[in-house]
Amino acid sequence: MIKAIRRFYNYYLSPERELVRRLRRLLGFTPAYLKVFKLAFQHKSNNQDTDPNDPYGGQNNERLEFLGDAVLGTIVAEYLYKKYPLGDEGFLTKMRSKIVKRNSLNKIGDNMGLDELLSTYNNVRIAKSMLGNAVESLVGAIYVEQGYKGTTRFVVKEMLRNYVDITHLETFDDNYKSQLLEHCQKNGRRVDYSVVKRFKQDKRDRFKVAVLVDGQKLAVGEDFNKKAAEQIASKRALVDMGLKVSK
Amino acid sequence: MIKAIRRFYNYYLSPERELVRRLRRLLGFTPAYLKVFKLAFQHKSNNQDTDPNDPYGGQNNERLEFLGDAVLGTIVAEYLYKKYPLGDEGFLTKMRSKIVKRNSLNKIGDNMGLDELLSTYNNVRIAKSMLGNAVESLVGAIYVEQGYKGTTRFVVKEMLRNYVDITHLETFDDNYKSQLLEHCQKNGRRVDYSVVKRFKQDKRDRFKVAVLVDGQKLAVGEDFNKKAAEQIASKRALVDMGLKVSK
Repeated sequence: MIKAIRRFYNYYLSPERELVRRLRRLLGFTPAYLKVFKLAFQHKSNNQDTDPNDPYGGQNNERLEFLGDAVLGTIVAEYLYKKYPLGDEGFLTKMRSKIVKRNSLNKIGDNMGLDELLSTYNNVRIAKSMLGNAVESLVGAIYVEQGYKGTTRFVVKEMLRNYVDITHLETFDDNYKSQLLEHCQKNGRRVDYSVVKRFKQDKRDRFKVAVLVDGQKLAVGEDFNKKAAEQIASKRALVDMGLKVSK
Repeated sequence: MIKAIRRFYNYYLSPERELVRRLRRLLGFTPAYLKVFKLAFQHKSNNQDTDPNDPYGGQNNERLEFLGDAVLGTIVAEYLYKKYPLGDEGFLTKMRSKIVKRNSLNKIGDNMGLDELLSTYNNVRIAKSMLGNAVESLVGAIYVEQGYKGTTRFVVKEMLRNYVDITHLETFDDNYKSQLLEHCQKNGRRVDYSVVKRFKQDKRDRFKVAVLVDGQKLAVGEDFNKKAAEQIASKRALVDMGLKVSK
């Protein structure tokens, strides 16, 4: 009942009703507790809003991310479990990681237009990685307000159906490292990775990694994340070996 | 309603009522769908019980594990989120991994007496690792029958309260590798790990790993899992260096 009144107020009367309507289009429902949702879009916020009577306690953006990451993983797991009644555990695990991995979440956040909401609440340049985190904290905020069922409705109807091409993911394999490894093992060739350079960029560690097949350097890749650099190098090696078309 | 009748039948009339009562003591409720629970205790089973009208589709032990692993992770995340209103994301993540990591789940399964149930359905020697898997598939089975709320009740009341010492976990640090690394970095010493032996035991790969400080071999550890072997070796190195009391 209180929630319904809050929703009515938020949608029709609140001075922030423009934001409320934007959220409604995004969420598929009118948020009752605006504070949590605003928090979800604040980068690295503090425990300012701690209410000792709130069962969910202090809410800050990173705590919401922690909660949202877990909830999202479970909802996607259940969705796949039901969608693929004969899919084995290995297939389900792979499909899930394709959906919830950093890169996909960044794209989903981008397609949802979260960059706009993020720029409203942050005076920094919106980095790609902030979009995926915002998806997670948004899911966390929805969970705090709506519980498991309501969050499932949002994730399946608003997120997966609109922004994830599940059928495409079934056959899509972007683990270039394992593709390269598999191909080389079949042909009795040995694959190694080595960090050829490690340096600071924007105050962060950046890695340049080389992939070697039978000791011969085939390609290099560069990223802030060592594993991502290995993936880039592996993809280039696959293209060089004629096993993959570059795009 | 149908569930209530099934429960009554299972508890009072079923030829398997002995099992049902054992499950009741374990679960805190009488299971309505016995099949799923029996399946949870079958090691590496197949999709024998696929019912196309069942929204959860084909159920096999590993699929239940996949589902249970996700659900358990989320319930524990939510529990910690509420229990520690001021805990930051790093603390919550660490606490969660202490609770749901392989080793803890094996111990929880052992304390729950799952080994007995496992021996009823499997003609193999019950390995320690099967206990943790059984905890996960049991949680998956409960989720299929009871949904999110009912599973939360089980995990919090029957599992966490009885078998997990949360307060102890707050200060307990069993990541010996990171402890060793931290200590050595403070003192400008270098830590390396190297696989000194890799061999087959019970048809599985087993690793013997040495930990080297400033190039000097301090200790070795052995396990089927390379990371676990590194942890064992690191713990021994810490004991040797007088930084930890062996027990």
